[in-house]
Amino acid sequence: MTKEHEMDKLRAVIKQIRNLDYPLMRKAQDRLDNLTKPVGSLGRLEELARLVVGITGKDKPVLTQKVIFTLAADHGVAQEKVSAYPQEVTAQMVYNFLRGQAAINVLARHIRSRVVVVDMAVAEKIPNPKSQIPNFKNKKINYGTKNMTKGPAMTRKEAIKSIEAGMDVLEEELIRGVDIVGTGEMGIGNTTAASAITAVLAKKAVRDVTGRGTGINDKILENKIKIIKTALRINRPKSNDPIDVLSKVGGFEIAGLVGIILSAASHRIPVVLDGFISGAAGLLAYHIDPRIKRYMIASHCSAEKGHRIILSHIGLDPILDLDLRLGEGTGAALGITIIEAAVKILNQMATFQSAGVSGKG
Amino acid sequence: MTKEHEMDKLRAVIKQIRNLDYPLMRKAQDRLDNLTKPVGSLGRLEELARLVVGITGKDKPVLTQKVIFTLAADHGVAQEKVSAYPQEVTAQMVYNFLRGQAAINVLARHIRSRVVVVDMAVAEKIPNPKSQIPNFKNKKINYGTKNMTKGPAMTRKEAIKSIEAGMDVLEEELIRGVDIVGTGEMGIGNTTAASAITAVLAKKAVRDVTGRGTGINDKILENKIKIIKTALRINRPKSNDPIDVLSKVGGFEIAGLVGIILSAASHRIPVVLDGFISGAAGLLAYHIDPRIKRYMIASHCSAEKGHRIILSHIGLDPILDLDLRLGEGTGAALGITIIEAAVKILNQMATFQSAGVSGKG
Repeated sequence: MTKEHEMDKLRAVIKQIRNLDYPLMRKAQDRLDNLTKPVGSLGRLEELARLVVGITGKDKPVLTQKVIFTLAADHGVAQEKVSAYPQEVTAQMVYNFLRGQAAINVLARHIRSRVVVVDMAVAEKIPNPKSQIPNFKNKKINYGTKNMTKGPAMTRKEAIKSIEAGMDVLEEELIRGVDIVGTGEMGIGNTTAASAITAVLAKKAVRDVTGRGTGINDKILENKIKIIKTALRINRPKSNDPIDVLSKVGGFEIAGLVGIILSAASHRIPVVLDGFISGAAGLLAYHIDPRIKRYMIASHCSAEKGHRIILSHIGLDPILDLDLRLGEGTGAALGITIIEAAVKILNQMATFQSAGVSGKG
Repeated sequence: MTKEHEMDKLRAVIKQIRNLDYPLMRKAQDRLDNLTKPVGSLGRLEELARLVVGITGKDKPVLTQKVIFTLAADHGVAQEKVSAYPQEVTAQMVYNFLRGQAAINVLARHIRSRVVVVDMAVAEKIPNPKSQIPNFKNKKINYGTKNMTKGPAMTRKEAIKSIEAGMDVLEEELIRGVDIVGTGEMGIGNTTAASAITAVLAKKAVRDVTGRGTGINDKILENKIKIIKTALRINRPKSNDPIDVLSKVGGFEIAGLVGIILSAASHRIPVVLDGFISGAAGLLAYHIDPRIKRYMIASHCSAEKGHRIILSHIGLDPILDLDLRLGEGTGAALGITIIEAAVKILNQMATFQSAGVSGKG
């Protein structure tokens, strides 16, 4: 951690993060063992139910208010042709989210979650006249990052401001109720940033953490690897200073997600990570404070190769493996419904005694 | 296939099974490729949506009416102490299902599915005065199988009658609507039957397909392996005659599931298999008619070791891997909600054109 006085909020939030409630988790395990099923026979569902008890500190947590935060931002490095899609797609997809017709909207409706879309740094202005759209938040810090092959993506001050904006987003939603959080993002060029972050913090070769993103061909992939190497050479991000890494080779949506993750943990709310970009935010949060690990649940393992490296670096075991590589929070949505199922098992099943079922012979 | 005239219904149902609608699946793929997401980026969700289109023959299938069939039966081999639980647990769990407090009820409510409980051969009478419980069906063929270490578990006639009873169960439900089927079961001793079936049809050593079921210790596991070997030696089931295998070392709930699977396929309804026992039913159905493979979706890979062997023998790739080993249809329930999500993606997402999003650069 670093010393600026601008980091007062960040520091205050981190200070609020507590240990899991282990005694309550043991009580939850006792209850799980007494439900009408063989001990341990619901495998990871039991583990997830126990974890949500430990995070929330509630013996019978209920996950009614589900929120997926989809943060959008542009990336200056998109100029270097690292993506299959043009930069304007970021803004176009934000409109698609707001109309409720993107993949994340479909999956969020399926699991009965709301989607909160946040403009962190989209390159164009997203109008929201009279704030008519309650699920849209304007937290614009800038109009995209700078091209990280020519210098830092953002200033250190901007990085901290973005993390704190993410914290504000989470806190503002508390009034509507937040029982569980899913992370999501949109930003043309952001797998490039995520790969750069992963290379530095997980100490891996760029090639080993760089994939095809939206579906680039071999030639563009080679260029993407070269671009990331250049960015790391030019900026020299310090692997022992996550804020330095974030500001030099990160992105505004990634920074915002770091804030959401830290703030959710401070409020004892489970955070369900989506794919590679969300994973990079989780990785940064973990390097800011390793205790955050216990509050993060990996929804799935992405087809992007860097994601598996992040998960094993932090020590998270993904719930699903469906070859997803879309982002937006889509994997998080599916993970959340599995976690909700797990919690319902704990809350709603009969015990051997209450059901009059004989125990082991 | 065999020659008895008792098999008229079975033969008629099999005759109705058609190929998937491949032209419609190609159209579905075109639509998936035009939705506002990189091509292929929703991985297995896209594959599942396409498959449901091919099975149902509908370009926009809707999976509103979800039904999990939980078939219960007892096993004479339970006398040989192959399970951790006493035989009366089968009936006790049926009552638990009917009260809506078992794991399958919780998960079915979560995914908005109904659970239809069927008494195929529970060792005691399950009263249902005036058929007041609409989700319970009495199709009792017998009061459990005979002890397969001493002779066939059931007669060949009973095996066919049980398959046909399963077909009736499915057909009776059509009036309430059946868009997708999940298979489930309950029966103390039924992993023993499933292991025996798997050993014969997948041609594996008994030890390689026999696991701990409800959680037996090493000593009981060794006994279970010995018991299965004895049953196979005494009965000599013919690996080229699945009905012979079913009658000699199977179970009534497994036979009923074979009927449900075949009948669902004949009505172009996707069948979502649960774990090891359901897998054994799927394996039998596959050996009766290999075309059935295209209609079966494996929801998860069970912690029971024989299940992985079944899935690879048929060539099914499970959606989930959550270390479940409960049965009842619990894994199928979770698989169904993922499949429903996949179909909603196909039906509800905007295309690049409709959303005004730029395509690849």
